[in-house]
Amino acid sequence: MKLATLRDGSRDGILVVVDSNNDVYATVEGIAPTMQDALDRWDDVEPKLRQLGEELDSGERDGTPVDVDELSAPLPRAYEWIDGSAYINHIVLVRKARGAEPPETLETDPLVYQGGSGDLKGPTADIEVPDTEWGCDFEAELAVVLGDTPRGTTADEAGDYVRLVVALNDVTFRNLIPDELEKSFGFFQSKPATSFAPFAVTPDELGDAWRDGRLHRPLRSIYNGEVFGEPEAGPEMHFSFFDLIEHCCKTRSFTAGTILGSGTISNEDRSRGSSCLAEQRMIEKIDTGEFETPFMSPGDTIQIEMEDADGHNIFGTIEQTVVDVE
Amino acid sequence: MKLATLRDGSRDGILVVVDSNNDVYATVEGIAPTMQDALDRWDDVEPKLRQLGEELDSGERDGTPVDVDELSAPLPRAYEWIDGSAYINHIVLVRKARGAEPPETLETDPLVYQGGSGDLKGPTADIEVPDTEWGCDFEAELAVVLGDTPRGTTADEAGDYVRLVVALNDVTFRNLIPDELEKSFGFFQSKPATSFAPFAVTPDELGDAWRDGRLHRPLRSIYNGEVFGEPEAGPEMHFSFFDLIEHCCKTRSFTAGTILGSGTISNEDRSRGSSCLAEQRMIEKIDTGEFETPFMSPGDTIQIEMEDADGHNIFGTIEQTVVDVE
Repeated sequence: MKLATLRDGSRDGILVVVDSNNDVYATVEGIAPTMQDALDRWDDVEPKLRQLGEELDSGERDGTPVDVDELSAPLPRAYEWIDGSAYINHIVLVRKARGAEPPETLETDPLVYQGGSGDLKGPTADIEVPDTEWGCDFEAELAVVLGDTPRGTTADEAGDYVRLVVALNDVTFRNLIPDELEKSFGFFQSKPATSFAPFAVTPDELGDAWRDGRLHRPLRSIYNGEVFGEPEAGPEMHFSFFDLIEHCCKTRSFTAGTILGSGTISNEDRSRGSSCLAEQRMIEKIDTGEFETPFMSPGDTIQIEMEDADGHNIFGTIEQTVVDVE
Repeated sequence: MKLATLRDGSRDGILVVVDSNNDVYATVEGIAPTMQDALDRWDDVEPKLRQLGEELDSGERDGTPVDVDELSAPLPRAYEWIDGSAYINHIVLVRKARGAEPPETLETDPLVYQGGSGDLKGPTADIEVPDTEWGCDFEAELAVVLGDTPRGTTADEAGDYVRLVVALNDVTFRNLIPDELEKSFGFFQSKPATSFAPFAVTPDELGDAWRDGRLHRPLRSIYNGEVFGEPEAGPEMHFSFFDLIEHCCKTRSFTAGTILGSGTISNEDRSRGSSCLAEQRMIEKIDTGEFETPFMSPGDTIQIEMEDADGHNIFGTIEQTVVDVE
């Protein structure tokens, strides 16, 4: 099942069900007004939404053509947005890029940070850059949306709490990071609003590609019209989503609609490219002694998407342009 | 005006208006079902809620007696919970306690971290401690609840976006902090759910005590029945709430209902006591070479409250007991 949120001028938009090909949607009057409401009452509403999706797929029900510009983030505001950093190759490269060492517990203790969740951007939102000196970068990632998840949930149990899988662009101001991490309280100004692909999908929609708490498909980043990276999201995700859930649940519970990210998808094989500029820049620095690729400037574009084994776009495409703002 | 949230078994509870003496409340049918809804539509609903409050205060309207056990946090789940650390004395002492140096930019660049906002506890919720070795501590703080606050908001403009002022206990597992901050991604496991005093008040309710983005009253912490600290919240708040808002708004906008905390209230004058155990422990270590006061164990109690100049309890009292859980 695929779900999306249609803009209607309200804060939370309107929940819609989308067919498997991303062609048409159906509104869900009487089932759940918003994505958050559906997540709040998932056990009750999920079978009804799924039925609608099946009717769209079979042609039994006519849908309305999807226009991605009319869609917001699946959750335009969420109660928590937690981002992991589960790809070891990314951590090692990005830390090198800022002259920092990887943490000693790199392979045993997951890195997660709490992100801002009150203002989540849709798939075609402009990336607003008040100052290009801040070093704007994209980060192509996956995330899971959780149901109510109790403190103490283990990795073995974690799969029961994964409601939806989404793709996102964790926009980052790289040059604001060193001073913030120096203070040790984590990212804040360096992380402006995060943008999401339009379609949130249930794990079963992913078939065999969803296994062991990982999504085993490549995530493609197209930067200024050219493929910049297409790393496999599965094998090098050192901590699975289930591991990350266990880590997060050590001392806290999470409410329905909590979004938990993978961190930037990254492979050791350089031929797969990168899911952010910072990695590419570090590779250039290692190879040539110089950073060559600049960070993003007004007019630069980024597309992020993932296809299933049959070439169908799973989450729809994030398509953003950097714009100058005061 | 004072607002609170009555438990009714739902996720967000029911918004109520409370009289100035915290004696009685009125439900607000037809105005706004929940605190979040009121914040979402503040300009429209605020005058109507205020009228109800005035009717309660004048005796024109009969209210229902307040039972704090029936109240949840003003916002049982919020879209963001951001905590500053604006009291220099606290930063210096707590860093000393874990053998860390204060950041070089201590007095010029505010410390803030993004906290978990999906599960906020009410004033009488038990503090659940799965492992006393984690070093459970209370932290008595104030916070403001924001309206929609745009990116780029300056300290001069910030007052326009402060809707409510609240008091809270930012429960912390001290012994989980060093490893987390070593990883530089900020607090996560070390910060279990935060607890809030029952009444959220509009700034005008605070009279002259609310000025310059600071609340000029002492915040009292009573630990196991004895006053543990009563530091003044105003003069030593190095960065005001307005300064913190400007800092947070550098690269992001904030949605209505975002909660922004002061950090642990702390005074240089030791006779004012402390708003957390960690400070007291550090003072002991400096004076005697030993940490004497243990962290919290099952059965320990903490009360947090603030009185106005006439001795009236402003926010109601946080009254929590530590309990053992698996």
